[in-house]
This record gives sequence, C-alpha cells and structure tokens, in this order.
Amino acid sequence: MKREEKENRRKIIVSGARPSGKLHLGNYIGALKKWVELQEQYRCYFFIADWHALTTGYKESHQVRENSREMLLDWLSVGLDPDKAVLFRQSRVKEHAELFLLLAMITPIAWLERCPTFKEQLRELQGKEIHNYGFLGYPLLQAADILIYRADAVPVGEDQLPHLEITREVARRFNYLYGRILTEPEPLLGEHALLPGIDSRKMSKSYDNYIALSDPPEVVKRKVSMMITDPQRQRRRDPGRPEVCTAYRFQEIFNPPEVERIASACRTAEIGCVQCKEILGHKLVEFLVPIHEKRRELEEKSDYLEEILLGGEEKARRDASATLEAVREAMKI
Amino acid sequence: MKREEKENRRKIIVSGARPSGKLHLGNYIGALKKWVELQEQYRCYFFIADWHALTTGYKESHQVRENSREMLLDWLSVGLDPDKAVLFRQSRVKEHAELFLLLAMITPIAWLERCPTFKEQLRELQGKEIHNYGFLGYPLLQAADILIYRADAVPVGEDQLPHLEITREVARRFNYLYGRILTEPEPLLGEHALLPGIDSRKMSKSYDNYIALSDPPEVVKRKVSMMITDPQRQRRRDPGRPEVCTAYRFQEIFNPPEVERIASACRTAEIGCVQCKEILGHKLVEFLVPIHEKRRELEEKSDYLEEILLGGEEKARRDASATLEAVREAMKI
Repeated sequence: MKREEKENRRKIIVSGARPSGKLHLGNYIGALKKWVELQEQYRCYFFIADWHALTTGYKESHQVRENSREMLLDWLSVGLDPDKAVLFRQSRVKEHAELFLLLAMITPIAWLERCPTFKEQLRELQGKEIHNYGFLGYPLLQAADILIYRADAVPVGEDQLPHLEITREVARRFNYLYGRILTEPEPLLGEHALLPGIDSRKMSKSYDNYIALSDPPEVVKRKVSMMITDPQRQRRRDPGRPEVCTAYRFQEIFNPPEVERIASACRTAEIGCVQCKEILGHKLVEFLVPIHEKRRELEEKSDYLEEILLGGEEKARRDASATLEAVREAMKI
Repeated sequence: MKREEKENRRKIIVSGARPSGKLHLGNYIGALKKWVELQEQYRCYFFIADWHALTTGYKESHQVRENSREMLLDWLSVGLDPDKAVLFRQSRVKEHAELFLLLAMITPIAWLERCPTFKEQLRELQGKEIHNYGFLGYPLLQAADILIYRADAVPVGEDQLPHLEITREVARRFNYLYGRILTEPEPLLGEHALLPGIDSRKMSKSYDNYIALSDPPEVVKRKVSMMITDPQRQRRRDPGRPEVCTAYRFQEIFNPPEVERIASACRTAEIGCVQCKEILGHKLVEFLVPIHEKRRELEEKSDYLEEILLGGEEKARRDASATLEAVREAMKI
C-alpha cells in the first residue's frame, strides 16, 4: 500500500491553539503531550488560531506574529513533527473564512448566544470591549475550522464539549438542508490533565503562575521553590498532606517513579518541602533539557520555520478546498 | 496619459444586487439605469451578491446559479459593459469573506441589531427561519464588499442610508484602531426613482405586479392594460387625475415628450384610460426592443457570459487582495 493511500485511511484529527507566545507546562500537559501522541496514529491538522486570537485580542493584533512564532517553536521543541502532522496558520487558509460565512447563513444566533463560554468570557473580560460580532461567532469559526477537514474526532476537555456540540449541530443542519457532506466529529476526551500553577490555581499566563517550557533552569528552580504546598504544614517536623500540595501534583506528573516514596515520606515528615521541591526542580530541569536543545537549534532557523508553515498551509489549503468544493456543489452555488 | 493611469484616478463606485433572476422595469429605473450612467465616469465594481442571497434564501440556494445568469443577461442587455465596469460574482472573490471575518472582530453586535432593516425583515419574513448569524451580519458583509475596493461612493436610496452608515462606522473604527487604511464611502443619492407595479404598490417580484425586462410585447401590453388608474374615473367621460394614476407615472418616465399632452387630455377626458394605456404599451415595447435584441444575442453565448465574469473576477480579486494586504499589514497579522 502506498504511503498516500495509507494516509487517506487514517482517521482525521483537528485541533488548534491561539497564539499565546511562549507556552508553559500547563499547555504541554493539557494539550501538546496528547498532540504529540496523536500524530503517530491519526492524520492531524494542528493550527495556529491567529484569527481566533482577534476575537478577544483585536486590540493587541500586533502581537500575533511574534506569539505565533514562539508557539510554533514550542510545538516543534516538544516533538510535533511537520512530517507527521499538518502544521499551519489558520489565517493563511482563506477557506476557513469562506466556510465560516456559508455556515453563518444556517446557524441560529441563539445557538451561539447560549454557548456557556460566551457569557462566561463576557463576564471575565469585563474591562475589554468584546461584545463584538466576531466574538459571538467564534464557536462557528471553530466549527468551520473542524468541518473543513472532515475531522473524525477532536481532542477536547470537558469544558469544551459545548463548543464541539455546536460544531456537530451545525454539521447536522448543513447535511439536513443540503445533503450528507460534512462529517460530525466525535469528542476525543483525554483524562482530565489539568496542571496547577505555582500558586495552586490553574496554570495560566494571566495569573502569572506558570513555568514556561523555555524557562532556563535557574528560573524553573526558583519558581518551584515558590510553589504552594500544604498550608497546614508550617514546621519541618509537621506531617504533610500530599493530596492538597501543588508540588506533589507535579511530582505525580513529572516524577512517577519516585512519587509513592515521596508521598509517604511527606506524610511522616521524613522529607521536608524544601527537599521535595529540590527533587522536583531537578526533575523538571531534566525534562526540559531536550526541549531547550531543540528550541535553541530551531531559533536560528527562521527560514526553516516559515518553510514548515508554508508546506503545512499548502496541504491544508488543498484539503480544505476539496471540502469547500463539495459544500458549494451541495448548496448549488 | 496611459489608460491604466487614467483608470487609477477615476473615483471608485461599488454596488451589488442579489441574484433575483429576471429583472423588471422597477430594477431598471431604481438602479440599473443609474449604473449604466455611472460606468461612463467612474471605476465601477458591480457584483452579483450571491452570498447575500443566502442570508434570507439559504433554503433556496439551488436557485442562485440560474438567477445569477438571468440577472447578468439583463445587466448586459440594458447596457452594462464589461469593458467599462468590473462585473463579477461576490462568491468568487474569497477576499470578501476574509475581510468580513476581520471586520467582525471589531464590530459591536449592537450596531448590527439596531440596523432598521434587520428588525423589519425579521417581521416581514416571519414564515422564514432567518434569525441566523449570517442574516444578522449582512450589513457587515456589505461593509466588506464596499471597503475592500476602497469605494469613494456608493449609489444608495434613502432607505439604504443606515447600511451605508454602518459601513462608514466600521471603516472609522478600523482606521482608529489600526491606522488610516480604509476609505469611508460617501452616499451617492439619486433622485428617488421608485417605479410602481401595475397594481400601484412598489414594483416587486413578491407582489407579482411587475413588468419584466424580458417580457414579450404581448405580455407587456396585457400587463399595461391591467394597470390601476384613477379609481374615481369610472366612465370614459369622467375627467381623470394623472397624479394618482399608475399609468401616468409610467408615461412620465417612459414617454416624456408626450406626457404633458396626455396629462391635460386626461384631465379633460379627451383621452380615455384604454387609449392612454395603448400609447404607453407601445412606448414600453419600443423601449424594450433593443434590450430584447441584445438579450437574444447573448442568451446563446454561455461561454461569453462566463468569460465576462471570470475576467471581472480576476480584476476584482487583484484589487481586493491589495486592500487586504494593506489591512493585514496594518493589523500586523
């Protein structure tokens, strides 16, 4: 069987991320790690959602290019491979905008208004003027992003299920009106891998509680040393409770061989927080060594980065065009 | 001065029409007649708004192609000239969709909701499910259609002024956020040339009270004979009131040399309605002769029609791309 044919039989996965600049361990654990696995089994389209970035960040549009570059560097550093997955910038595949517009015609406003993240974000980002038409439409842009590659599945967290449901509803409505053209994607629910930040809230750039994938060793160690542990453990000889400790959560993820031993040593106060964090800091630095190496190597190859994207965009455009052609044919326009 | 340079200095006009199939005299008097004049002085972009047709007619999308063809035949028959104006299908210039998406990010939903035609149409088309995202966004799609060619002016009727105001507001907001890139188009208000239908209401396909540009002579004469005249003139010897008579409104427009004479002959009952309508029918048929000839000639040249559109689309795409490039550069995406 030729490679091409084999490729065509693989199931299709689509996912994207807003260009948020340098990524952190939370991004890695929450999504990237999974993506790196997925590219081995599926035909994957992973895109830099630069248009999505504008739905809330239209006033910071000047950051999009630099943030996209940094994100791509992190993607490649952790092992996303342009020979395995299609990596591209959403804004370079105009077909997304065309499908968005066509799907807009058949999508009730109410489906978008009732999307839980719409109201949530309006609340959360109250300082920003985001009550805009594009912001209301972003689940529909997501639908276009996914449907245009006829994705079989989409990796999502529980919180994103309502978005995927809109995508599925839009696909069903299109197919009902014009014939079975679009594929209804299934959710690919991962184990809910949420990494806390060093202050124990969700790791996030906006909370400034993150450890970046590109943080140098000293910074990683300093941030680890600042991690919130069990607040009831005030003295070295107090026993600790790993289940409420942020550092312990990191040990579980980044140091599985030692995690059992550390947990019992914490409970019996054999080991103190300082020592526990030293072990963790060391582990994280070790984990980041190959990632930093890859990043350094790539940072100087701007042309190569652009080449990767241009190559991905060519493939993406070809596949997106094929779907759009079928869509236009079905609508007879 | 080279033709090219001269072309570049001409002011730019943009206008479009939804593909509604065969056009009628109301379309001609209300818009086409003006377009034919405009193409002599301006650089004109006239487009078949096939995407707009989907905002309310997404369930009848299968009619778009045939309706577009019929409309183009009428455009050419009345004298629109592909050597003078850029004639094209909106859906073939993807750049409109991209600019629509970008402008969506900065356009408050409230600007679209308060558009008078939005609520009006929701009311008028109550049988249809059009409370859709694309329908809400259609003034924004219009804004993209106009701004993408940096139009200096747009021919509008009074009723369309609110739409143009949204276009101007969107341009101002873009320029405020990202720098002066987009041109704020001025309205080009024509004298309010509204043609009544044969039942005296506004001439419209949906009222079935129209005379099509392609109606054969017998049909034209029959429709004229059915026109509502002065309802108080019940007998031949009653004097008539031209100012309330539909046939008289047509005489004013299509028979200016005789209109004075006919008015006074009507008021004194020298002339009856039947005779007045005979004169009018004759005039209209005469008016339509060259239009029908041109249409017959073109109807057989499908390849030529396609060529005209492809040529127009190439020009439109080139100019639209240039604007989009400036837009992306200003937004730094």
